[in-house]
Amino acid sequence: MKKFVYAFEEGNGTMRELLGGKGANLAEMTGLKMPVPPGFTVSTEACTQYYNDGRKINDEIQSQIFAALEKLEKRMGKKLGNEDDPLLVSVRSGARASMPGMMDTILNLGLNDKSVEGLAKKTGNPRFAYDSYRRFIQMFSDVVMEQDKSVYERILDDIKTKKGYKSDPELTADDLKEIVTLFKSNYKKNQGEDFPQEPKTQLIEATKAVFRSWDNPRANVYRRMNDIPYDWGTAVNIQCMVFGNKGETSGTGVAFTRNPATGEKGLFGEYLMNAQGEDVVAGIRTPKHINELKEQNPELYDQFVEITQTLEKHYKDMQDMEFTIEEGKLYMLQTRNGKRTAQAALKIAIDLVNEGMIDEKKAVCMIDPKQLDTLLHPQFDSKALKNATEVSRGLPASPGAACGKIAFSADEAVARAKAGEKVVLVRLETSPEDIEGMNASEGILTARGGMTSHAAVVARGMGVCCVSGCPDLIVDEDNKKITLAGKTYGANDWLSLDGSTGIIYAEQIKTVPAEVTGDFGTLMQWADKYRALHVRTNADTPRDAAQAVKFGAEGIGLCRTEHMFFEPQRIPAIREMIVSKTEEEREHALAKLLPMQKGDFKAMYIALEGRPMTVRFLDPPLHEFVPHEDWEIIELAKNMGIPFEELKSTIVGLHEANPMMGHRGCRLSVTYPEIAKMQTRAVIEAALEVNAEKGWNIVPEIMIPLVGDVKELKYVKSIVCEVADKIIAENKSNMTYMVGTMIEIPRAAVTADRIAEEAQFFSFGTNDLTQMTFGFSRDDAGKFLPEYYNKKIYESDPFAKVDEEGVGSLIKIASEKGRATNPKIKLGVCGEHGGDPSSIDFFHRAGLDYVSCSPFRVPLARLAAAQSNIKHPRTILGKIGKLFGK
Amino acid sequence: MKKFVYAFEEGNGTMRELLGGKGANLAEMTGLKMPVPPGFTVSTEACTQYYNDGRKINDEIQSQIFAALEKLEKRMGKKLGNEDDPLLVSVRSGARASMPGMMDTILNLGLNDKSVEGLAKKTGNPRFAYDSYRRFIQMFSDVVMEQDKSVYERILDDIKTKKGYKSDPELTADDLKEIVTLFKSNYKKNQGEDFPQEPKTQLIEATKAVFRSWDNPRANVYRRMNDIPYDWGTAVNIQCMVFGNKGETSGTGVAFTRNPATGEKGLFGEYLMNAQGEDVVAGIRTPKHINELKEQNPELYDQFVEITQTLEKHYKDMQDMEFTIEEGKLYMLQTRNGKRTAQAALKIAIDLVNEGMIDEKKAVCMIDPKQLDTLLHPQFDSKALKNATEVSRGLPASPGAACGKIAFSADEAVARAKAGEKVVLVRLETSPEDIEGMNASEGILTARGGMTSHAAVVARGMGVCCVSGCPDLIVDEDNKKITLAGKTYGANDWLSLDGSTGIIYAEQIKTVPAEVTGDFGTLMQWADKYRALHVRTNADTPRDAAQAVKFGAEGIGLCRTEHMFFEPQRIPAIREMIVSKTEEEREHALAKLLPMQKGDFKAMYIALEGRPMTVRFLDPPLHEFVPHEDWEIIELAKNMGIPFEELKSTIVGLHEANPMMGHRGCRLSVTYPEIAKMQTRAVIEAALEVNAEKGWNIVPEIMIPLVGDVKELKYVKSIVCEVADKIIAENKSNMTYMVGTMIEIPRAAVTADRIAEEAQFFSFGTNDLTQMTFGFSRDDAGKFLPEYYNKKIYESDPFAKVDEEGVGSLIKIASEKGRATNPKIKLGVCGEHGGDPSSIDFFHRAGLDYVSCSPFRVPLARLAAAQSNIKHPRTILGKIGKLFGK
Repeated sequence: MKKFVYAFEEGNGTMRELLGGKGANLAEMTGLKMPVPPGFTVSTEACTQYYNDGRKINDEIQSQIFAALEKLEKRMGKKLGNEDDPLLVSVRSGARASMPGMMDTILNLGLNDKSVEGLAKKTGNPRFAYDSYRRFIQMFSDVVMEQDKSVYERILDDIKTKKGYKSDPELTADDLKEIVTLFKSNYKKNQGEDFPQEPKTQLIEATKAVFRSWDNPRANVYRRMNDIPYDWGTAVNIQCMVFGNKGETSGTGVAFTRNPATGEKGLFGEYLMNAQGEDVVAGIRTPKHINELKEQNPELYDQFVEITQTLEKHYKDMQDMEFTIEEGKLYMLQTRNGKRTAQAALKIAIDLVNEGMIDEKKAVCMIDPKQLDTLLHPQFDSKALKNATEVSRGLPASPGAACGKIAFSADEAVARAKAGEKVVLVRLETSPEDIEGMNASEGILTARGGMTSHAAVVARGMGVCCVSGCPDLIVDEDNKKITLAGKTYGANDWLSLDGSTGIIYAEQIKTVPAEVTGDFGTLMQWADKYRALHVRTNADTPRDAAQAVKFGAEGIGLCRTEHMFFEPQRIPAIREMIVSKTEEEREHALAKLLPMQKGDFKAMYIALEGRPMTVRFLDPPLHEFVPHEDWEIIELAKNMGIPFEELKSTIVGLHEANPMMGHRGCRLSVTYPEIAKMQTRAVIEAALEVNAEKGWNIVPEIMIPLVGDVKELKYVKSIVCEVADKIIAENKSNMTYMVGTMIEIPRAAVTADRIAEEAQFFSFGTNDLTQMTFGFSRDDAGKFLPEYYNKKIYESDPFAKVDEEGVGSLIKIASEKGRATNPKIKLGVCGEHGGDPSSIDFFHRAGLDYVSCSPFRVPLARLAAAQSNIKHPRTILGKIGKLFGK
Repeated sequence: MKKFVYAFEEGNGTMRELLGGKGANLAEMTGLKMPVPPGFTVSTEACTQYYNDGRKINDEIQSQIFAALEKLEKRMGKKLGNEDDPLLVSVRSGARASMPGMMDTILNLGLNDKSVEGLAKKTGNPRFAYDSYRRFIQMFSDVVMEQDKSVYERILDDIKTKKGYKSDPELTADDLKEIVTLFKSNYKKNQGEDFPQEPKTQLIEATKAVFRSWDNPRANVYRRMNDIPYDWGTAVNIQCMVFGNKGETSGTGVAFTRNPATGEKGLFGEYLMNAQGEDVVAGIRTPKHINELKEQNPELYDQFVEITQTLEKHYKDMQDMEFTIEEGKLYMLQTRNGKRTAQAALKIAIDLVNEGMIDEKKAVCMIDPKQLDTLLHPQFDSKALKNATEVSRGLPASPGAACGKIAFSADEAVARAKAGEKVVLVRLETSPEDIEGMNASEGILTARGGMTSHAAVVARGMGVCCVSGCPDLIVDEDNKKITLAGKTYGANDWLSLDGSTGIIYAEQIKTVPAEVTGDFGTLMQWADKYRALHVRTNADTPRDAAQAVKFGAEGIGLCRTEHMFFEPQRIPAIREMIVSKTEEEREHALAKLLPMQKGDFKAMYIALEGRPMTVRFLDPPLHEFVPHEDWEIIELAKNMGIPFEELKSTIVGLHEANPMMGHRGCRLSVTYPEIAKMQTRAVIEAALEVNAEKGWNIVPEIMIPLVGDVKELKYVKSIVCEVADKIIAENKSNMTYMVGTMIEIPRAAVTADRIAEEAQFFSFGTNDLTQMTFGFSRDDAGKFLPEYYNKKIYESDPFAKVDEEGVGSLIKIASEKGRATNPKIKLGVCGEHGGDPSSIDFFHRAGLDYVSCSPFRVPLARLAAAQSNIKHPRTILGKIGKLFGK
């Protein structure tokens, strides 16, 4: 019989897959003899089984749970539901990867009409017993039975109003008894049956609820954002309750071994006395700093500090721990590697190396590449900041600078951000439902909550700037107004937040880009030492090129020439070319573009300071360059001096049923070779001139897009070489150049052996390759992809994370076939996947030579490439430096 | 040193690849000691070398040509260009595959100002000598130098007018001398240099011209139509001239060993006395029947008959021969397997089997599958024909019935046919430039030319009905009028032609479809005996299904359900479904469609008489079902009782940037599972009812289109199975059914191992697969494909002939992967390639189980499949009969 249930004594920290992160770490701490309340874990396999059985917990699993419960009862000398001294347990989720706040928790399970009396007797505290019972009924109704929780809150409020109370602590035991009665009758009204008195029923239903919560919408969104597979499932931890709300010698808290915002070494955390579990995290009361515990209970504080240090040394990483003090006794409820800001992650990694705890490779692997993004986010311009006026302060919950207009709800933030507005989300406090809105915002400001509140934890994870717990802030969501230090602001007012200081400005402040220096620079150097993939950038302007070089790009992997054509002073020439009727007319128009293109390429080469650049020839269909509305056509016809009807008919003639699959890419060069001629001349002359001026040795790289057949490439290449060779000879130069192609059409992938005979490099255009391989266009897929996610047909967006099974297999086929006929061929990627860590890992394993990504993704790519090579070492193909050329 | 030149004595009939068809057969006849004028062949490899050398004949090849010439001169005792008794040669093209009229010929080569005198002296016939010279200059100027030939014709006409002559024979030797002088000075004017007097220069230039003609536009079109690869090249045959125009004891003719129109055994042909080579073929004079030769010269006739019989026995096929009689002596200039009509091809093949000359397999392989098409073309309805009035008669040049309006030029025929008109092309005579127009026409009518004229030969090859040599016909192309037996007709008048009788009607006559009986039936039985592929049909209506069954279809491989939705009485329901806002509304609309769909399927099953049918679920994007113009939307909104704005916004919301890659296929079933539910119910209930009514055993086959991931198929299949199993259980039936998928997206091909785990059959949708694999849409490719043909990047239309290298390799990958995880899976094709012989050959070699094609392609597919299996035998996978089911 398969084992589905493990007592904490039976597990250990390596069993994350089976027991989930929380369960494995509880087991590990138990093994380290730390004060962990006893309990057991129902495995992730039981979760999978639950789904396979049609959302049922089968008899075998139930009987294993009950057997474990019986052992626990024996050990504790208490029984679940007992009317004298009842055992109470918590039921908590715990997946392999931490998903904070995404899934459900039920506390105080085991209470019923009888055992509540037992608890009252045993503790001598009827108020505590009935408060625990009403909390349990409330949680069970909400989480397990999915009833409307607001009704329960209203019942509570009504009693308080009736009695004239201002806060919960004023409620007496009798009040709470009354509330329990009202709760139970509301439960019956909703559920059609009494609140379950049988503790085993409570336990199984609660376990089911946790399993079910794995599939709730916000968990699905979180997983998609974090590449967590749906089929992992969650474990369930069933653990003896300890109470932080048993009076003033009880309490509960959260602490980190290092500062999760800055990385500074030293205990960092918060606690609340006389509070239960989720109170600290939920941000409803503002907690005390952990250091105050030293004064309050030095002995316990020392014990806690020792435990935290042991844990950090044991896990060799910064720990995030939850603890409870029950009547003066410390209990550890959780430890895990703590989430941290990017700055903190860098500092911690480097400090741990310096402290001799880990080596460089480990340090490189500790940083989530996606986090680096936040370091590249702009900071406030120091000059602009001088003139700015601080209006208030909150807690510096997640660093960075944010500037946007005020949004009052997550939905509003999403909608306005989609419409192109920059928004700052302002909330009383945030909840897990707000995730998408937080992600869409420049920054988050909350009135309530500490450094470990929901808003703070989630914002740090996302790398979004956050200021939390601002006492001066009053949020009036209904009227779309906030009051900040006495002044009122609305949806059209600007806020600027400094997430590193907590300072709030009620104005728009200019921001400046970040630089790769200090800890960041050190870690990037280590990454470069260990990676095998080269990293280039996709850039079309000297500004982007220079930015990418600052971020460590080794050159340009994709320079899209069409972006240069769209500029207002150039588009007339390209339009003239489009309406040309003869080759001569086209050449005449192209001749006007030549000096501009050449100038562009020179500026690009100079910005790259001698690094190589792959220039992709004109790619988009020509209709993208002409207007389509009659009034625009009338105007253009006037400007061009041709009749409206003629221009209109040319434009109508350019219309395509499926522009993605139309007359574009190298097909343009096949029909209009003069375009390729002009572009070749521009590239080659630019390189010759820059080489002469600077004494550099640039080897131009020309890339032919959308090739599907070797003969297409051969034809266009013959035009390129004819022009290039002539210019080089006329200049008496010995400059060499390369001609390669994009592999972005399935046919190119499966015939790559033939194509490689004519190409010096392949660059996988994974955007188009994904579209063609899946047979759906990115523009249109939005209509059905949401339903594909809902139905678990796709778990991730194939345009964000490369589809290894389909697109990946074409990449492998093309690589193998290409290298078979041309062993020297260089293979790279220039689609957007080149900047996605899990895709980079695939490209590394597939044996490619380089990735090219947008400038702001370059550090991420360097780091992800290093992590891949540390995990899957392969021969380093070339010394980091120039990838192509001599 | 490679051998590029072969004397006729050095070759034989098996050397077609090297010597071309004409050269190999001249060599073979020489070996058979037949009276062939001596000569030699410059090989196809020399042609390839010519193109590789940048259209130059290199020194090595030149010296081999001159060496062969020297031997020939020695043997003949004459020298090229000799002023006493000159050798004259013809220079003729000859490719591997016969391409009649496509390439160039030069006669009388070796004449110059001196040798013309030698010829005059030696023959004692100065008129003949100067006529030969002026013909040579004319041909050389036109064919070799590509000068405007009309100027030469005008010079000739001017002299005739000046002298008051009516025809060429009236020209005297002196007239011809004057013409030669005028021709030479026109040559010099055009060319800037004198007409070449050096015979070796003439010879090399003429050889180059033949090589060059391989690449002329009409040859390229012909090759594309006939799947002849460009890289084959042509050989050049250089042969001693014999003259059919040396007076009344000379002549020239063309003959077949059997009647190429009917297949009847017996000599069939035409000749002209005192005429040169091309005169018979060109159709300028109307020739005599070959039987008349018997009376004119019985001895020579007997010699000729014996030769023709020897040749037919030798080649075991009907021969098409050219001969010349020079002063009473017979010379054979060519033999080849004769082109024939489809009827003739069948009769000849079956007669040859009956005569014991060949076996059934050989007979099956002798028929060009594409030719069968003509047998399936309609014939005149016998009742309608009774009331029709014959207005004139011509020669029955190519059988079949044609009915259309009069087109006066090839371009006009192409344009009007494209616009949807049925046209009959009426010409004085046709020329190779007319090919496309002939192909676009229902039938061809010419005033001049015999049964072997250009029009007749080409029309028979194409299977287009043709009546030639109609003496009553006057064509006035300029005024777009014809006169037929005294009456005038214009572009809007109907003509009906009977290609089997030569009768012409000036009215529209109803036609009826053909049947597979007689010789056709016999050959199809033989084909079925030898094929391994099953043949199904693509049909959406009972009429098409019944037609396909008549043509031998084993069932339906693709029934497109959307065609049923487009019918006027149904489209309101589908539109109601589209504008529905909820699942309930959609189900309500679909409920209206259910009885209609079920009725359709029942009718289809009944038409198939128990044969299996694969039903493809709804495929096109929903916007295809709604109008897009405002006025149509206004009307529809009124009919549907919803506001215009609402309907308009729904329709705008359906717009897609790339509909080919949009929300269609199984993506519709993922977003709207209720569509799949309705369709499943319709299919399953129809099959159950028909099985009950007829006592049949139909096993319904449901095909899910556009699958790209196994999870998509799994999801839709779960819906199908849920509905189907429920209905079957409710009916207490034990009927089984199958669920399969189309493989038409590249991702499906490369992940076919996974998909095969959920599919009972794959049907390759090669139309979409070709589009996605090449990354171009059929609708848009028209803009650049012509340039791809011009530049030899593609030689054939990948939508007509499957691209083996790219699309084919995906088909192979998918087949291998699919069979690896599901060895029982059935593999087929339902794209249009299923009706293309060379594609069928690929599908056979790739190991597929079946092809499905349009009803009129079924016989073709049966034959092509048999030919493939005879050439590449493989295990026959199942007895011909039911492919699927129990």
